[in-house]
Amino acid sequence: MKFIDIIEILGTIAFAFSGAYSAMQKRLDVFGVLIITFVTAIGGGTIRDLLIGSLPVAWILDLQIITTILTTYVVALFFLPKLMRLSKLLFWFDTIGLAVFCAVAIDKGISFHLHPIVCIALGTVTGCFGGILRDVILNEIPYIFRKDIYASACIAGGIVYFLCLYIGIDNGTTGWIAGITIGLIRVCAYYFKWRLPLIYVKG
Amino acid sequence: MKFIDIIEILGTIAFAFSGAYSAMQKRLDVFGVLIITFVTAIGGGTIRDLLIGSLPVAWILDLQIITTILTTYVVALFFLPKLMRLSKLLFWFDTIGLAVFCAVAIDKGISFHLHPIVCIALGTVTGCFGGILRDVILNEIPYIFRKDIYASACIAGGIVYFLCLYIGIDNGTTGWIAGITIGLIRVCAYYFKWRLPLIYVKG
Amino acid sequence: MKFIDIIEILGTIAFAFSGAYSAMQKRLDVFGVLIITFVTAIGGGTIRDLLIGSLPVAWILDLQIITTILTTYVVALFFLPKLMRLSKLLFWFDTIGLAVFCAVAIDKGISFHLHPIVCIALGTVTGCFGGILRDVILNEIPYIFRKDIYASACIAGGIVYFLCLYIGIDNGTTGWIAGITIGLIRVCAYYFKWRLPLIYVKG
Repeated sequence: MKFIDIIEILGTIAFAFSGAYSAMQKRLDVFGVLIITFVTAIGGGTIRDLLIGSLPVAWILDLQIITTILTTYVVALFFLPKLMRLSKLLFWFDTIGLAVFCAVAIDKGISFHLHPIVCIALGTVTGCFGGILRDVILNEIPYIFRKDIYASACIAGGIVYFLCLYIGIDNGTTGWIAGITIGLIRVCAYYFKWRLPLIYVKG
Repeated sequence: MKFIDIIEILGTIAFAFSGAYSAMQKRLDVFGVLIITFVTAIGGGTIRDLLIGSLPVAWILDLQIITTILTTYVVALFFLPKLMRLSKLLFWFDTIGLAVFCAVAIDKGISFHLHPIVCIALGTVTGCFGGILRDVILNEIPYIFRKDIYASACIAGGIVYFLCLYIGIDNGTTGWIAGITIGLIRVCAYYFKWRLPLIYVKG
Repeated sequence: MKFIDIIEILGTIAFAFSGAYSAMQKRLDVFGVLIITFVTAIGGGTIRDLLIGSLPVAWILDLQIITTILTTYVVALFFLPKLMRLSKLLFWFDTIGLAVFCAVAIDKGISFHLHPIVCIALGTVTGCFGGILRDVILNEIPYIFRKDIYASACIAGGIVYFLCLYIGIDNGTTGWIAGITIGLIRVCAYYFKWRLPLIYVKG
């Protein structure tokens, strides 16, 4: 198993956990939790594959994704209610997931010969829409629209990705640099309490 | 017209009715009701076809589905507000729809050579997501995440399906056994008030 | 650049503006506004392309759509909070967008050899679902389900489209007639305060 596969599995676990955690706060039954866990973990990648027409979508063909999610789900059912200080752990998992999924999606976009701007949009959608779907199904305004540096980290990472390619760095290294950039921005935003400006108009 | 087609039409009618009924409780105008009726009836099958890449999706190519839904819609507009004790009728229709759509989706998954676990996931998604989309668009936390044995009936039916195949029962009979299992579980859950455990954590 | 392309860009701008405007009323951060702007502008067309299997979806292959939306977004960020009497301007843009997107989608459906009823459904979905997705993500019951003549204008325009084809008017002119019909119905509905009947049942 390659290192990137391990990282992708970590990302999937992270997103699955964040889905399970959100669902349990809403007093869903165990199958409600299962579906939210699934949607959060595979939502972004599913939308990515639908948009570019890479069908069937990844998790339909890759049993490893489903078994990873199911295992995470079972672990979450038994241990999540007992864990304290979970939010910090979740944050680190989630950051890994965001960085991995975004970088992988940009790479997939390039292999489909898409324009850099489209690739960056695709990476951002892949990183963000698992969480957006989770919140929409749970009847909340998406968390990342208000309280977190998330989409902007993806966009910055995507720009770094193409700058690296432009100056001649090879494709594999480029993915790592972009992923680490995304992770770093999110971690800095967390510790230094960066906030994006709110702009609003009266209704 | 084959018996399975009649059953599928009954399932479509059932889901369309449940959409119309939910929409009318929200004081939508007649076209809001139309769209919710449609989404509830074709939502699960549409997501199934998108995920496995069976495009155009079924209802685009099959006029019978659209005419069934439109007819149901018109009948619902005129008669639903006058019907009493509707929820019991709806329950039976809905159970038929769930059983049929789940069994048909598993069958479709097999014809796409997908792994049994993926087929069961596909069946569950197809049975459940019409209702989930209905509730999400109507701004509710999906009903089936809290108050009903629904997804679990699909999963149990899916396992029965593959057990039957494994012991050598032919494909057609297998579909019937799985569908009846799903229906029976849901009916038993209804009458014996089975509930799935809720597991929650503090926010 | 053909006249129809200019009209399509106007429609995209209109839908993007309406997304930005709705998002800003919800106190999202600037990237929340960006995503809602995007989803509103490309949502209807994306669902259209997914349903008929025209993949990758249009905006993935057409950089002009993305740059139009990004430009609209930047303009909206700087000028929307200062604009008064915006809702009237938005209404006109939005009407153009609805008419264009619906007529273009019917045309695309015909080129995929779909049945007229399916084409009309496709046009209605394309015209309406950008706004529906916007409202669902922002945690509102879709506006057009309650307070506006919208889907019905699409359906009427679609029927006019096929009537024109039936009596032998050429394809291009037909699109214009249908689009103008849709726009006129919506404008009349606005000024004469047409409302669709509400039908509801007790929960």
